[in-house]
Amino acid sequence: MDRPIGVMDSGVGGMTVVREITRQLPNERILYFGDISRCPYGEKDLETVRAYTIQVAEYLVAKDIKMLVIACNTATAAALEILRERLEIPVIGVIGPGARSAIQHSRNGKVLVLATSGTVKSNAYPDAIRSLNHNFEVTSQACPAFVPLVEELRYKDDIVTGIVIHQALKSHMHSDADTVILGCTHYPLLKESIRRYFDGRKAVIDSGYETAREVSSLLNYQRILRAPEGEVTHTILINGDSSRFKYILRDWLPELKYDMKEIELKV
Amino acid sequence: MDRPIGVMDSGVGGMTVVREITRQLPNERILYFGDISRCPYGEKDLETVRAYTIQVAEYLVAKDIKMLVIACNTATAAALEILRERLEIPVIGVIGPGARSAIQHSRNGKVLVLATSGTVKSNAYPDAIRSLNHNFEVTSQACPAFVPLVEELRYKDDIVTGIVIHQALKSHMHSDADTVILGCTHYPLLKESIRRYFDGRKAVIDSGYETAREVSSLLNYQRILRAPEGEVTHTILINGDSSRFKYILRDWLPELKYDMKEIELKV
Repeated sequence: MDRPIGVMDSGVGGMTVVREITRQLPNERILYFGDISRCPYGEKDLETVRAYTIQVAEYLVAKDIKMLVIACNTATAAALEILRERLEIPVIGVIGPGARSAIQHSRNGKVLVLATSGTVKSNAYPDAIRSLNHNFEVTSQACPAFVPLVEELRYKDDIVTGIVIHQALKSHMHSDADTVILGCTHYPLLKESIRRYFDGRKAVIDSGYETAREVSSLLNYQRILRAPEGEVTHTILINGDSSRFKYILRDWLPELKYDMKEIELKV
Repeated sequence: MDRPIGVMDSGVGGMTVVREITRQLPNERILYFGDISRCPYGEKDLETVRAYTIQVAEYLVAKDIKMLVIACNTATAAALEILRERLEIPVIGVIGPGARSAIQHSRNGKVLVLATSGTVKSNAYPDAIRSLNHNFEVTSQACPAFVPLVEELRYKDDIVTGIVIHQALKSHMHSDADTVILGCTHYPLLKESIRRYFDGRKAVIDSGYETAREVSSLLNYQRILRAPEGEVTHTILINGDSSRFKYILRDWLPELKYDMKEIELKV
């Protein structure tokens, strides 16, 4: 099936999911939407994020995507269920895969979730984990400074990153959670720094990385994989200035072949 | 939804999948069928295994299972596609999850599959991996002595296990595959021995462990998870003498609560 997989995020964070999808499934084409003019979603109220997410989803569905990946934890918390009911194509969020992976990997059943304020307030990770396995203990920490750090390209500045991470995580340094979920698709750019902060004592789960695996599984289950044909070029749509976006892609997805278009999409 | 998950295997090997399902999803009830009177499947021709698998699947469907897990690689290779077409409930095999996990984890795209002769001859793993990612190189090794080693309880005898593993794997000791798939649900009982044989230089993927994660994902996607209610007791049906089966369960699943019944089921 030649139709693309639609992937959406508030900004560049969702490209961490795209990176894994294109690595695991090199035949697939991606149509990405980055809602950068309204970024970040994570500190807005869930009603607003729900409206944005539905609008972007419907825009992508009109472009004939075969599956929608909500590559943003806050948008998943706000709108996954309603979009599953409304859309006829399969819809995947990033929270379920991260939750299932944490359950798979944790040995002591104690999990720390790092996420935006919106995702933490929604309780989506504790709910997802405990609905599968009520023996788990889940602690959450909002990290509102992490997304701006990434979007403003400060994630390569070790000193700034170190201070921001320490401020957010110091109260968890000696927690007994053996597993940390990066509950925001921007956070994988800080993954190594976070792993080092915990001295390698906690497994760090990247929800996006796990989501790509579930995309693979569901495409197979629904029999809508794309056959290997010709060179694959992806399409990235953003509603704002593309220069910063391109800078980040050059830095950590240098081999990605894509066309980028600046479009308008606002409520 | 209170209906059980049906799990089938030719013998006790599929209980490695059950172990992971019950750990990750403690609310779920399992109805297991071990076709021990016709074990092993792995060295029989695929037509025969297909007939056995369809018969067991239909028997379990008549017992009102909500999902079927074919916890046997040979049976998956022989009958997954036909059962997906015939049955109205979701059907999961163990080959897809193992293949997807190998793609997720391998860094150099070189994978070694250890499996029964039937699974190797079917080409199911190379086909599954390369249909997702044609950049991968897959080598297969039939290990016909591994299943009897487990079924005859010799897997705890280090000397015998060491000789059998060395005979099967010596030509791969210095291969450049960075990932090994245990392509038979009996093999996880030899996992540590195999990992040590390769000096920890290869990641060892347990298909059953990965399958449990995809069971979790699909139950969620289909909205047929069981609510946490009361104590969970599983049911194990086998068509032969149960004493060896019980011995193995006492050894490596001592906390499992189950009723076991000996029944008749033959072509």
